[in-house]
Amino acid sequence: MTTRQDCLALDAADPLATLKDQFSLPAGTLYLDGNSLGAMPKATAARVQQVIAEEWGRDLIKSWNTAGWMDLPGRIGDKIGRLIGAAPGETIVADSTSLNLYKVLTAALRIVRADDAAGRRTVIVSERSNFPTDLYIAESLAEQHGMTLQLVDHVDEIPALLNDRLAVLMLTEVNYRTGRRHDMKAVTAAAHAAGALTVWDLAHSAGAIPVDLHGADADYAIGCGYKYLNGGPGAPAFVWAHPRHADRFWQPLSGWLGHASPFQFSARYAPAAGIKRYICGTPAILSTAALECGVDTLLAAEPFGGMGALREKSIALTELFARLAEERCGEHGVYVVSPRDAAQRGSQVCLALKAPLHEAGYAVVQALIERGVIGDFRAGDPSRLDQVPHILRFGFTPLYIGFADVWDAVEHLQQVLASGEWREARFNKKAAVT
Amino acid sequence: MTTRQDCLALDAADPLATLKDQFSLPAGTLYLDGNSLGAMPKATAARVQQVIAEEWGRDLIKSWNTAGWMDLPGRIGDKIGRLIGAAPGETIVADSTSLNLYKVLTAALRIVRADDAAGRRTVIVSERSNFPTDLYIAESLAEQHGMTLQLVDHVDEIPALLNDRLAVLMLTEVNYRTGRRHDMKAVTAAAHAAGALTVWDLAHSAGAIPVDLHGADADYAIGCGYKYLNGGPGAPAFVWAHPRHADRFWQPLSGWLGHASPFQFSARYAPAAGIKRYICGTPAILSTAALECGVDTLLAAEPFGGMGALREKSIALTELFARLAEERCGEHGVYVVSPRDAAQRGSQVCLALKAPLHEAGYAVVQALIERGVIGDFRAGDPSRLDQVPHILRFGFTPLYIGFADVWDAVEHLQQVLASGEWREARFNKKAAVT
Repeated sequence: MTTRQDCLALDAADPLATLKDQFSLPAGTLYLDGNSLGAMPKATAARVQQVIAEEWGRDLIKSWNTAGWMDLPGRIGDKIGRLIGAAPGETIVADSTSLNLYKVLTAALRIVRADDAAGRRTVIVSERSNFPTDLYIAESLAEQHGMTLQLVDHVDEIPALLNDRLAVLMLTEVNYRTGRRHDMKAVTAAAHAAGALTVWDLAHSAGAIPVDLHGADADYAIGCGYKYLNGGPGAPAFVWAHPRHADRFWQPLSGWLGHASPFQFSARYAPAAGIKRYICGTPAILSTAALECGVDTLLAAEPFGGMGALREKSIALTELFARLAEERCGEHGVYVVSPRDAAQRGSQVCLALKAPLHEAGYAVVQALIERGVIGDFRAGDPSRLDQVPHILRFGFTPLYIGFADVWDAVEHLQQVLASGEWREARFNKKAAVT
Repeated sequence: MTTRQDCLALDAADPLATLKDQFSLPAGTLYLDGNSLGAMPKATAARVQQVIAEEWGRDLIKSWNTAGWMDLPGRIGDKIGRLIGAAPGETIVADSTSLNLYKVLTAALRIVRADDAAGRRTVIVSERSNFPTDLYIAESLAEQHGMTLQLVDHVDEIPALLNDRLAVLMLTEVNYRTGRRHDMKAVTAAAHAAGALTVWDLAHSAGAIPVDLHGADADYAIGCGYKYLNGGPGAPAFVWAHPRHADRFWQPLSGWLGHASPFQFSARYAPAAGIKRYICGTPAILSTAALECGVDTLLAAEPFGGMGALREKSIALTELFARLAEERCGEHGVYVVSPRDAAQRGSQVCLALKAPLHEAGYAVVQALIERGVIGDFRAGDPSRLDQVPHILRFGFTPLYIGFADVWDAVEHLQQVLASGEWREARFNKKAAVT
């Protein structure tokens, strides 16, 4: 059995351990929710202060040029590109994940329609377990384009839908709820073989696992700035289009900063070349500047092996957590919902509880939070908790989580369950809202 | 002739003068570009620092509830509502002006279509001089809906287009380039009489002039957070829908935070009641928090008479600037492009230069900036500068501009023209980009 001493030894030998110094984390908190909101980089406060006091307050309107505000979306996009296997100039920071999905899914549908003279490709396929905003945006666009959004309950149903009716296969690489990871390269190849395009949501991938968009021959990708990229609450999102698609068609959110010559103030839209046409309105500079600080915390890992090294540590952390949770808390009904094969898993581990504690998940998470162990709760399907259980979700960000942290988290979980403290009324009084 | 002494006396007697203390403005700068990027409120730096260090850094994910992040869009929306004649619960902060226009214009088109069984209403009317992003979004939606975007060159052409072909009349209340203001109430009534809906862009109205959306019986309105609302570079925008429309139809950017129950993580979209359905993805909290500080600088004028009092001062400032500019710089060919009737003008004054200096506008603006007088330049139509001249644009924000500032600005303009310093090569070398 692994001891806390063993974990401390692993931390002492970890070349990535110093990267934690980049973050300001509250004392006494074990933060395992970086997959929902990444922790705060120390550099962010000073950088945003500089933007406010100097760039805005002192230099005012000039800063669009002199402080490079106009270049931020592309500059940060290129930095994110280094994390996801994109070449420079292919990725841009803009708006939210939902909005960027609207842009790329429309563009994909327009391309498919143009290349589908028979008009047979009218189906968008995704998973019912995808993050809801992706489904809502696809639902909106399916209705707008007179298409069908078909949702599968299990990944095994997808191959049968890869046919000449399929327009776009829209998937989130790592499932927000279970942490299950798709094989982006294999799935993309299968979709292409069926003549369809792919849209990948990297919300739980970018900064969490190595992504190789070109290696997978992906068509479009979008992702979130405030999870593993540590950009701050509601940080802007990013969008990538394969160069073979980037110049085909407009995206419909044709705002002035996506124009080829925005400062000509022309009355007609003419999209910028390449990924810049995916910009819409004026970027929120404070939030965008903060995002850059977050992305920089990941680039700081490049001398240590970058995303590959971070992934290696992430696997070690998640393996350890899954094993210790079952070893030490299995007697209380704890089991691992995320895939046990690391290749099929993102940087999170989801637990659930067997009967008779199958409804206790929310209270257990609350009791952990009370102890300073921050994970989160995702409700299951109340009518069939055996198949879609309540989930205790724990994200492991190798930038700031270590092996002793994993040991301590399991220790707390064990104590919460063994002591029964989760049964206290205060942990049961309200529904989860985050 | 008004003297600088007269202006200082006006400032001394101005009960609004103390409101300037809310802002941090660089010494030696006369900032007449608040219509492009509002000045920085002193409160913003501390507030954003609090959001970063305490709400994000210390309280992390909990702040969505404990710090009220989830309520920010509605709370600030209600504050903006007080400036534009909206009732509480009708206005929300979200995304950018361009994106909010996409939402409301789609909603308006869906309503018109549903009520137009004959399918005759297929025309969207706007002005060619409207801010380009509005035209680009309308162009996108016209194409998507199989409609026509018809642009007029002069406001007098609009009445003839108010007929049973008209779906939506989409106007910006105050023109970004000339400062010309529409009569929102009269124009809306005429559009309604023709059976059409109206969409108003308040980018140069909100915080600049009193707006009374209910009084005008407007249908939809959107506006900008970073101009007269002082929200900071690229601050989020706002959106308002008349309650009679708010619950009809989805807007197409159906992100998860516009869902009726976002934390049920349902696979099907069900829009929230009222204006909340106009939220899309997760709001950019740093930029949103900064916007609230900006809006608060306008609410601080409420004890002094609010927007009515600010408007009175704005008219006095713009009248004075227009008169002094023509009196003192008329001999150099300076003339006023903005309407001379204050009722037809926003809070800006645009100047132009007659031949032979009709092409000197850019250099003159640069020379003024060199002297610390920040206005901006908007290029005319090079082939007919007599009709669409180059414009020297000056915004007058009564919160932080006084009468002596107006006098000083004209004095600098007079010196720049009389001395010929604008002819120096350094003022002529590059095109305007902001």
